[in-house]
Amino acid sequence: MKFNSRNIYVSPKSKIGHNVRIGDNTVIYDDVHIGDNSIICNDVVLGEPLNSYYQDPDYENPPCQIGANTTIRSHSIVYAGCTIGDHFNTGHRVTIREASRIGDHCSIGTLTDIEGDVTIGNYCRLHSNVHISQTSSMGDFVWMYPYSVMTNDPYPPSNDIKGPYVGDYTQVCVHAVILAGVHVGKNCLIGANSVVNKNLKDFSLATGSPAKVVDVRNYAAMGKGKLYPWMRRFERGMPWQGLGFDNWIEQKKSKK
Amino acid sequence: MKFNSRNIYVSPKSKIGHNVRIGDNTVIYDDVHIGDNSIICNDVVLGEPLNSYYQDPDYENPPCQIGANTTIRSHSIVYAGCTIGDHFNTGHRVTIREASRIGDHCSIGTLTDIEGDVTIGNYCRLHSNVHISQTSSMGDFVWMYPYSVMTNDPYPPSNDIKGPYVGDYTQVCVHAVILAGVHVGKNCLIGANSVVNKNLKDFSLATGSPAKVVDVRNYAAMGKGKLYPWMRRFERGMPWQGLGFDNWIEQKKSKK
Amino acid sequence: MKFNSRNIYVSPKSKIGHNVRIGDNTVIYDDVHIGDNSIICNDVVLGEPLNSYYQDPDYENPPCQIGANTTIRSHSIVYAGCTIGDHFNTGHRVTIREASRIGDHCSIGTLTDIEGDVTIGNYCRLHSNVHISQTSSMGDFVWMYPYSVMTNDPYPPSNDIKGPYVGDYTQVCVHAVILAGVHVGKNCLIGANSVVNKNLKDFSLATGSPAKVVDVRNYAAMGKGKLYPWMRRFERGMPWQGLGFDNWIEQKKSKK
Repeated sequence: MKFNSRNIYVSPKSKIGHNVRIGDNTVIYDDVHIGDNSIICNDVVLGEPLNSYYQDPDYENPPCQIGANTTIRSHSIVYAGCTIGDHFNTGHRVTIREASRIGDHCSIGTLTDIEGDVTIGNYCRLHSNVHISQTSSMGDFVWMYPYSVMTNDPYPPSNDIKGPYVGDYTQVCVHAVILAGVHVGKNCLIGANSVVNKNLKDFSLATGSPAKVVDVRNYAAMGKGKLYPWMRRFERGMPWQGLGFDNWIEQKKSKK
Repeated sequence: MKFNSRNIYVSPKSKIGHNVRIGDNTVIYDDVHIGDNSIICNDVVLGEPLNSYYQDPDYENPPCQIGANTTIRSHSIVYAGCTIGDHFNTGHRVTIREASRIGDHCSIGTLTDIEGDVTIGNYCRLHSNVHISQTSSMGDFVWMYPYSVMTNDPYPPSNDIKGPYVGDYTQVCVHAVILAGVHVGKNCLIGANSVVNKNLKDFSLATGSPAKVVDVRNYAAMGKGKLYPWMRRFERGMPWQGLGFDNWIEQKKSKK
Repeated sequence: MKFNSRNIYVSPKSKIGHNVRIGDNTVIYDDVHIGDNSIICNDVVLGEPLNSYYQDPDYENPPCQIGANTTIRSHSIVYAGCTIGDHFNTGHRVTIREASRIGDHCSIGTLTDIEGDVTIGNYCRLHSNVHISQTSSMGDFVWMYPYSVMTNDPYPPSNDIKGPYVGDYTQVCVHAVILAGVHVGKNCLIGANSVVNKNLKDFSLATGSPAKVVDVRNYAAMGKGKLYPWMRRFERGMPWQGLGFDNWIEQKKSKK
């Protein structure tokens, strides 16, 4: 039904893995490498050329690596120069600009906009409508929810851009903003509609605009003591699924 | 000018009503039913297959019903399994995921993202850039404004998702968030940038983050006493247009 | 690589300047005028017809003027009836509705949504995901950041829409909202997540929801005295680049 080979363009300079399906009206520019068993839906653009392409007659597209077992949904755009791991998954109309590095098992929702030169770890989940500014970075198992933002300019407009960092396992709720240069620790919870303008230690709960911080050791007093950290109560799609978080941690240690 | 029959794909398993116009580059997958006198613009996707399509060789697209006198603007995506009433209207790049039920005379603005399994009544107006999470629902005559959100996860990430409900005639202003499981009554006004984390009675005015509530009986003190409820002063596109809200209510009663 | 002339439609009633490149799958409707040396990327729609097109058999597309040295990135939509200056630049999936007037040297980011009948001066920068409601207007050198909004309805829903105005050089940070009818002066700084519900004098710093105002003469006390106004410390892409803001102002005066 969906893969009729209508109006597709694939550059002869690109390498498409085994068992890759490509949807109608999709465009794949030069030097895109797609891993095996991937699904590239309709109206997708991969290897979108950088700005300099329009001026430089000698322009060559930097390579765009996309891992195996990937599903990229319709109308998404991935720029040249990106490196994306295996088991990658997108919603519709995602934009991922140049020089972004995304780990394995990540998922990026509909309309999310990754501005370029961004580093995303493994098993991250960016929901719909997340905006990540240039040079932002995050660890593993970070989740961000709709209309959350990582900004990079401390006093706009400036040339001193510095994307923030969000640590492993941290949850960034709807409409939350992490300001330029801020370092958010591991296992934090950033409340809906918060603006985080200062560094947060590991296990911080931060809410408000500007965000006020409660150490997670006080979570219990807020009735959330049993809920965070979340890894012992949520497993779907995580590497500890069927095993339990503590067992998975033990297993990782014993393998080292 | 706009309907040149270029690069269109319509599944032979779909049923297209009388006097339906279909724009260039549009794709209509299996088992889509479109009512008479509808306009499906360019670059639209109708009957987008569910996730399971990519894995299941026996997959069959669930039916997608779209009513008569509909206008779907360019680059919008409606999934298989949706049921949408008559006089439906969208902006550009709308996403409506599977199993959503939308009544008659609704309008959904540019970039609005309806995540699936959502119930929307009649005469609702979702402006641009609204995000509705799975299992959310609303009554009739609900209006939501840009970057307003209905979220469904009470302690993210969890499996206990429960979309909120918004009652008839309620207005949800720009950047407002309705949290998971919250029940918002009829005829409420949710202020710009509010976060609603508790149930609201009918006729509540709620503002702030978290939202504080003022009963509508105090609206007058805020200079809004003449403005809300809004139905006596606004008629455009409403069923009481030219008749007046009170007469329309009377008419409805006498018909029963 | 990118301009293969595949599946392009250009109305014979449109006028395309010299050295204009048009990407694959792009559609240009009646009476679109594009200046010389412009780049219209793939999957773009220019001259999108107005609503009345669908009902009126005698409809004629109002002219859409787009200046020289323009770059419109993929999947963007510009309606008929817009007038846009030279050196215009867009991201992806921008929407610009009818009767909008945009000056020279403007840039509009990915997913930004300009609702129509909007006036934008010269050298404005709208970042990704900005929403500008109908009848809003702004001066020159205005910058707006992701998820910032100009709204136009003072007591929704109403017919008394009145877009706000933002003055020259003002910066509107992420997630800020300017409410209907508000007049924001020149050289203001609107903080992240603010809601501006009152007029602001020139050189105001406004933060919070609703925004509280600090006169810029107090900026120094906040450690920002050296940073704003910003024009003496930021030049990239501005007409005072390489010259300095004060010299540029002098030059302008002496030319008069």
